[in-house]
Amino acid sequence: MTATPAWPPQSAPRLHVETLLDEGVAVPVDGNPAHYLISVMRVKPGDVVLLFDGRSGEWAARVRDLRKRDLVLECVERTKPPELVPDFWLCCAPIKKGRIDLIAEKACELGVARLQPVLTRRAVVDRLNLDRLHAHLVEAAEQCGRTALPELAAMVKLDALLRDWPAGRRLFFADETGGTPLAEALPGHPGPAAFLIGPEGGFDPAERDAIRAVPDAVPVSLGPRILRAETAAIAATAAWMTLNGDW
Amino acid sequence: MTATPAWPPQSAPRLHVETLLDEGVAVPVDGNPAHYLISVMRVKPGDVVLLFDGRSGEWAARVRDLRKRDLVLECVERTKPPELVPDFWLCCAPIKKGRIDLIAEKACELGVARLQPVLTRRAVVDRLNLDRLHAHLVEAAEQCGRTALPELAAMVKLDALLRDWPAGRRLFFADETGGTPLAEALPGHPGPAAFLIGPEGGFDPAERDAIRAVPDAVPVSLGPRILRAETAAIAATAAWMTLNGDW
Repeated sequence: MTATPAWPPQSAPRLHVETLLDEGVAVPVDGNPAHYLISVMRVKPGDVVLLFDGRSGEWAARVRDLRKRDLVLECVERTKPPELVPDFWLCCAPIKKGRIDLIAEKACELGVARLQPVLTRRAVVDRLNLDRLHAHLVEAAEQCGRTALPELAAMVKLDALLRDWPAGRRLFFADETGGTPLAEALPGHPGPAAFLIGPEGGFDPAERDAIRAVPDAVPVSLGPRILRAETAAIAATAAWMTLNGDW
Repeated sequence: MTATPAWPPQSAPRLHVETLLDEGVAVPVDGNPAHYLISVMRVKPGDVVLLFDGRSGEWAARVRDLRKRDLVLECVERTKPPELVPDFWLCCAPIKKGRIDLIAEKACELGVARLQPVLTRRAVVDRLNLDRLHAHLVEAAEQCGRTALPELAAMVKLDALLRDWPAGRRLFFADETGGTPLAEALPGHPGPAAFLIGPEGGFDPAERDAIRAVPDAVPVSLGPRILRAETAAIAATAAWMTLNGDW
């Protein structure tokens, strides 16, 4: 008996590309991704690289036209259908660079469909580098096996978010003044749903009133300790995914 | 009507100290903590600083004998009783510096009682700087309001951990080959409990068999995506706390 090699090979590098993929499509690769494949992964002609475009699932491609600084990947066969992640949005206030990057990375791994930055009054940061956040989403998606990136929405002000809140999308929000324990509030709401997490300083009283006034809002408690904003975002997402998602 | 100032003041700095605290105890402070109080927080004589020693709860202390590089804090009044965190251990393989630090920080915030590093065959790191991890636990405890640090155990090999596993402590472990979904496996086990998380490369087959052979072991699944080790550790802890802890 000969062992059948795994298909696709488990060690194959995995890359997000902008090109819409299909059988026979040739994808030219240069810049950082080419450097990664050529100098870090040391691919050879004919080697398999997994590609995903965020729309058509995942594809096995073969290395072709390998040069010093660029190469071509030729799409051979679909290896995964387009993915369905749970209909869950993570809405969070902008926080310091390293910590918002962490939220993006973990949101992608945990299966969030949409990451929505929300500007609140006590936010200590009022601008976000969406390109950098996008790069973190891409890297996390490449690593965790997702075939689609989470949608990264432009930052909106809290009052605009609430004014346009889509009817029927449950809006869980971490309320430091008290709320229903997660274990009671979450079960039985498989989506559409969202979690709203404030900045380190929390929501101000007027903001809390405005959130509570949304018909789909549910104030919840994340326990007796004071969580950093990114801890709250990651923990709330993990709890929702455990009870309502695809885990 | 005059507004009563909050007691203890919400903005009071919070510090972990080694001295066993009691009413009237004077705590000399120098080095980094003194620098933080004097130069960063700019405390003045009589200002309140919150102290905890990991054993006797939290205390309000007043600044006294303030000099350039050191000061004395005098314990005035207990502000919180010693804390009871859920009886939950997080057992995890050592991983790269920044990412194991993140596990320590989040484990403390999320309410873990004991952090137990476990050496497994596929671990890419085989040494841990326990002093650095301790410093991360202290900082997180100061920030999140805990009055006791999580216990930080010395690293043990997986076979030793399993051989000495205490009877009756439920051992949930993240099994990449499949297991019960968390939402089914976790409820109704308020502790003693533990979660065991492998390194990036997972457990090897012999290790998995050895874990499954522990009578209290429960293989669980953390969903369809490939989670980084620290994501798995944080998400598993959040899920357990949601369903069995004090949230």
